[in-house]
This record gives sequence, structure tokens and C-alpha cells, in this order.
Amino acid sequence: MRAKLHGGRHRPADGSSRALPDVAVKRLPVYLRALGELAVGGQEIVSSAELAAHTGLTSEQIRKDLAMLGGFGTRGVGYHVERLGSSIRSCLGLDREVPVALVGAGHLGTALSRYNESRRQQPRIGAIFDSDPAKVGQRLGGALIRGMDEIDATVRALGIRMAIIAVPAVGAQVVAMRLVAAGCDVLLNFAPVRLDLPAEVRVHNVDLAMELEALAYYVRPDAPGAEGE
Amino acid sequence: MRAKLHGGRHRPADGSSRALPDVAVKRLPVYLRALGELAVGGQEIVSSAELAAHTGLTSEQIRKDLAMLGGFGTRGVGYHVERLGSSIRSCLGLDREVPVALVGAGHLGTALSRYNESRRQQPRIGAIFDSDPAKVGQRLGGALIRGMDEIDATVRALGIRMAIIAVPAVGAQVVAMRLVAAGCDVLLNFAPVRLDLPAEVRVHNVDLAMELEALAYYVRPDAPGAEGE
Repeated sequence: MRAKLHGGRHRPADGSSRALPDVAVKRLPVYLRALGELAVGGQEIVSSAELAAHTGLTSEQIRKDLAMLGGFGTRGVGYHVERLGSSIRSCLGLDREVPVALVGAGHLGTALSRYNESRRQQPRIGAIFDSDPAKVGQRLGGALIRGMDEIDATVRALGIRMAIIAVPAVGAQVVAMRLVAAGCDVLLNFAPVRLDLPAEVRVHNVDLAMELEALAYYVRPDAPGAEGE
Repeated sequence: MRAKLHGGRHRPADGSSRALPDVAVKRLPVYLRALGELAVGGQEIVSSAELAAHTGLTSEQIRKDLAMLGGFGTRGVGYHVERLGSSIRSCLGLDREVPVALVGAGHLGTALSRYNESRRQQPRIGAIFDSDPAKVGQRLGGALIRGMDEIDATVRALGIRMAIIAVPAVGAQVVAMRLVAAGCDVLLNFAPVRLDLPAEVRVHNVDLAMELEALAYYVRPDAPGAEGE
């Protein structure tokens, strides 16, 4: 998967919000997951070294990232698990409703929707759209499947700004343009096509083919196998 | 999605193979896709500026990456589309069979399998495993679904080193250990759990929840909407 390829710093949306680098933003959910595991285990304080062991990141990276959030650590003690989790959620905007639209209720959309429902956390898929009349009107993962012609009205009514595109490649550009026209400016695109959209729209592409191609590098024939004894 | 979080350079598997940085390896499929689009359009030569326009990467980045492959560009002319594509495929090891195992034939596995089959390119899912006896024996995306007890023999017989884990979180660790024991050393994990595996196993995690959490940062309530005129 690749994020917006330009990388670099996210421009502050307004004067009031500090901007974190995109690469740091991508690590925040990693910390959240680790903190969740620690909280379930009853742990109240965690050191950067422990977080490093839980995340695979270095202690230095972790201290740097968390310092950007406002510095919750106490030197020689560590971070308060619950408080740090709350701060990260707040930084990501997950402390309130973050409705997401899902377009495409095929196998991929169904898997995404069920997984999202099972977590009962934000962001939450609040609207689903599909072009198949047989699916429209059914429920999937707690949300109603609507027709594609309802994208505009529904996205506007629910104030949705984030959407997941899980339609075949051929339909993705049209879907993306509809979503953007309705007010979405952050798209998670699973269709294997490059979307041509206004620069202010953030598109994060997930393409299995490209994932596998990149990973193939690490199993090249000239590399020794795991059993290469 | 996050790659192996330590980042940095991939150690050369042996003396004969140059090592590319992980971040560069991840960009190679992006170039491949762009080159494929150009080839379909009948273009024979492409400049780094054109590749930049097609990929969202900078010309400087592209020139630097491609120079690492051996420098196929001719100054002031550009890159030969087909030849560059072949070189990238060769670098990634895609110029021969790269069989992949898929564990989990649910909605996600089905979507992944069908998409992979539709591309008719490497890496290709050559073996599928599921714990549901009702699915075992059926075909999915051109491959036979086998029982979980056949993982070891099948992975060994087919010389598979790469595997996709598309099972629920609760079963992922056991599945991963079986795959590694059978000879897999590169895993693409869709289960939302941290896998505990030997350090030499490369695990690439794709977690929709974490994707959405990170993207939520860009639609925080204090950020202006796309329609914020």
C-alpha cells in the first residue's frame, strides 16, 4: 500500500491545528493498537522500550512521535497507557463520530464492512452503496445498502468526508468523482487504477497486486529460502 | 498499511544480489503500473517527468530509483518503456513463477483470489487453504481450496515462500507459524493482530482499521471540509 506519494508534511488545515508529518500520522494507529493490548492486560504505565517491543518501532522514534503530540511521558517513568491512548484518539479526531461511506458491496466490501462492524470503533462505515439492484435495500454490517444514485444526497446528509472505494477498476473514477462532488476529500481506494482527482483530495491506494509485486523482491530465486540450511 | 516497521535497507540475501532500500522496492510496482499504462497507449520512450505525472512521484526520486537498477535512461531522451518494465520485473523476480499461498477463503480471500486471477501475472495464488470442510475441494480463482492440514505438504511441494493470511484474528498466529514451518518467509497479513514470528520472516501487515484511523486525521472536525467555501 502506498499513501499519498508526495509524502512530506500535511499542511495545517487551519491555524489552530498543528500538522504532523504523514509518516508520523501513519504510526499513531500502531501505537493505539499496542496501547489497547496493554490496557486489556491491565497495564497502567508503559515505557518507550515496551512500546518498541510491542510495535517493532524504535524507542527513539516513539519518543519523538509522542513528543510531537505534546509530551505525555514522564522521564524515567513512562507513559500513562489510558491517557496516551486518549490523546492519540483525540489527535486523530477519533474522539467523535467519523462516518465513512463504502462504495461496493461485493466480496471485498462485505469483508471490510463486517470487520469494521466487529470493531465498534471510529471511523465507522455509516453508508454503503452498490449498483446491484438485488443488493440495494439489504443491510450489511449494520448499514443499509443504497443505490449509487443516492451517493450525493446521503453523503451530504450524513456529513461524510471519508469514503472507501471497493468497486471494480472500470467504475472507480466515476465513483470517486461522485464522492468528491458530494463533499468527500479523503478516499481509501482499493480499485487498481490511478484516480484523477483535484489535488486537495487525499487518496490512499491499496492495491494487492502491487503489494505482492513488491514482496516478490524478498523471495527472489537468488535469495536463500527460509529452509536454506 | 505498514511495511516492516524498522524500514531501512534490506540485507542482501547473498553476495550476488544488490540490495535496494525497502522504500524503493515499494515504488517499483508503481513504476510498473505506469509503464504498463504507457505501453498500452503505444508509447515507446518515457521521460522521468512523464513518469512523475503518472505516478505522483518526483522526477528526482524516479531518476534516483531507476539509477539504482542500473541506469536505463539516456540523458535528454528518456527510458525505453518496455525495456525498463522488463528490468523492473527482473529486479523484483517477477520474470519467473512466484507462487503464493492464500489462507482463508472467506469474503476477503475470495476477493483477493479473483482479483489475482484476473491479472494473469506474477505473483500468482497457487494454493488456497480454508478450515471450512464445505469449501475444501472447491475451486476459487483457478486454484483448489485445500484443508488446513495440507498446508505443510503443499507449500513444500510447490516451493512456496510467500503467503497471504486472510483468516480471522484469532487464528492468524497459528496459521502464520504453520506457513513459516513449511518454508514461507514472506507474509502478507490481513488479520488485525501482531504476529509473533522469527526475525528473519518478513511480515507486511494490512489492517483496514489502522488505515481508516490514520486517514481520520485528515478529516478532523477542526479541518475545513471540501466544501468549506
